[in-house]
Amino acid sequence: MMPHGTVEVQTGCVGGGVINLGELGEFGLIGALSSWLPAGPSVLTGIGDDAAVLAAPDGRVVATTDFVIEGRHFRRDWSSASDVGHKAAARSLADVAAMGAVPTGLLVALAAPPDLPVAWLHGLADGLAAECARAGASVAGGDTSRLSSVLLAITGLGDLAGLDPVLRSGARPGDVVAVAGPLGYAAAGLALLTAGATGPAELIQAQLRPAPPYDAGPEAARLGATAMIDVSDGLLADLGHIAAASDVLVEVFSAAVKDPFIRTHCADTDELTCVLTGGEDHSLVATFPPAVDLPARWKVIGSVRPGHGVAGHGVTVDGKPYAGDAGWDHFRR
Amino acid sequence: MMPHGTVEVQTGCVGGGVINLGELGEFGLIGALSSWLPAGPSVLTGIGDDAAVLAAPDGRVVATTDFVIEGRHFRRDWSSASDVGHKAAARSLADVAAMGAVPTGLLVALAAPPDLPVAWLHGLADGLAAECARAGASVAGGDTSRLSSVLLAITGLGDLAGLDPVLRSGARPGDVVAVAGPLGYAAAGLALLTAGATGPAELIQAQLRPAPPYDAGPEAARLGATAMIDVSDGLLADLGHIAAASDVLVEVFSAAVKDPFIRTHCADTDELTCVLTGGEDHSLVATFPPAVDLPARWKVIGSVRPGHGVAGHGVTVDGKPYAGDAGWDHFRR
Repeated sequence: MMPHGTVEVQTGCVGGGVINLGELGEFGLIGALSSWLPAGPSVLTGIGDDAAVLAAPDGRVVATTDFVIEGRHFRRDWSSASDVGHKAAARSLADVAAMGAVPTGLLVALAAPPDLPVAWLHGLADGLAAECARAGASVAGGDTSRLSSVLLAITGLGDLAGLDPVLRSGARPGDVVAVAGPLGYAAAGLALLTAGATGPAELIQAQLRPAPPYDAGPEAARLGATAMIDVSDGLLADLGHIAAASDVLVEVFSAAVKDPFIRTHCADTDELTCVLTGGEDHSLVATFPPAVDLPARWKVIGSVRPGHGVAGHGVTVDGKPYAGDAGWDHFRR
Repeated sequence: MMPHGTVEVQTGCVGGGVINLGELGEFGLIGALSSWLPAGPSVLTGIGDDAAVLAAPDGRVVATTDFVIEGRHFRRDWSSASDVGHKAAARSLADVAAMGAVPTGLLVALAAPPDLPVAWLHGLADGLAAECARAGASVAGGDTSRLSSVLLAITGLGDLAGLDPVLRSGARPGDVVAVAGPLGYAAAGLALLTAGATGPAELIQAQLRPAPPYDAGPEAARLGATAMIDVSDGLLADLGHIAAASDVLVEVFSAAVKDPFIRTHCADTDELTCVLTGGEDHSLVATFPPAVDLPARWKVIGSVRPGHGVAGHGVTVDGKPYAGDAGWDHFRR
């Protein structure tokens, strides 16, 4: 964990050069991060000791860890440092919300090259802090090391506030499938960026700076959601995890997920492929008993049917297996 | 976090080739890890969902994250896969113990190249599980991604069991400084490995597979320790963090830390440099009120004096500033 330190950090130019991480040093960096990352009310001991101490009033803690790797999850020529901070925090905090928990804190393990400008790190910290604030959490600690490119491993922590966690394994035949947040926007944004486009902002931003609806997670838990997951690998892949864990089949209605905004702006991209297999939106998809009165932000997109959701074959679209690849496997591509 | 899956994993040779990570795939790997990593009693929801859920009976949770990077923290030609698992778990769990907490769980973010043999991953998992068992914890979840070399980011979680956390900031003039566990053994082992030696085992093993005295952490908290840290950067550097955080001076007695075992077996290494500046032992060093009756495994090695422990100048050896480098800075070397 980060040792203690508080320093004044000069992020501008001195003697004609931009100050970089190598000149700042590990302990300078930690002092800087601690001044850029305000601790929230759940953080009882923050940056500056062997470990953080966070409130866990429920008596259980929700904990998840995720990589965010340069060249794989972001490109520094597309994303600002603040974008990377937002995206890195969102990736873990959405997992916390997908358990039905309220995010409380984040641990940030940051590996970076010595020539990384300190101003970039300041932007990263600002993005992390801002996305944490969206979720009601804050950065409580972390670690730093040297690497040839930027790599983050982000741990998200959360509190269940007395509710049962919403697992992937509770979906039952007859449940409805509903989603809170956009589908396919991050993938459409990636396609646009790859083609050299700079808009529309809604799609580009969805890729660079996804904004998960964190409070929809605990809301779903209170509404009696039977299963929930965040859409990180792609809708079909992620619903496939629910189908397999719950031993059910999940049916998606294509008419309910098609999005005219994507169709209008991504003429070269197959809209349905984008919506069904594009990951990284970090929207929340959940199953609910059919009688639940869902708030407006939860859009029904399918239903749960009896059957056996064996890996990769548990989800159908309009009654038929989907022909293409369902989503992402880090080692096979 | 790791999605669900259970698979039979063939780690041997098929068709003349060793099975590697690329052939196993991400979901095969996760299924394999979940079968190799038994969940302990603190894990309420383990590998296989968006996040883990762990017991936090104290109502607070201790949380820390640390990198373990190939070429920086280990070499695959020196360390077995199991060694790497032990060392990676120890690095975070020692931080948890250094807060005075009882380790409960570990999250493992693992990035690796596709040609990594699955048998190596099995060894890694065995080492992680065994070191967790030494501490009373277990692996509760993680993430996987592709990278050109092996990199782990390990999050350790723990419970304070009703005690106050032992911070770096509580040392008071008049306190004694005591250590539980060896000093300099990991650094001596590194010097021996670098010189091509294969023994003595106590020193080589200290580098490849440090064995922190986890239960000494909560023991120190119960004894009234005023400050504590684990020796990861080097004794002087880590005591320097206590001196700075507590705004005191720390005095180390060289006669109390010299170790004839290191002297005997490392003729080419300066014994005192090894003991004072060698990191990675993950022993626990703490300050105690002078009247405390310390158990035998806590060896007194110094005392706390009034003064201002400004960064890098808060620790003296036999009354004098130490002439060499005190420890490790990841970005400056």
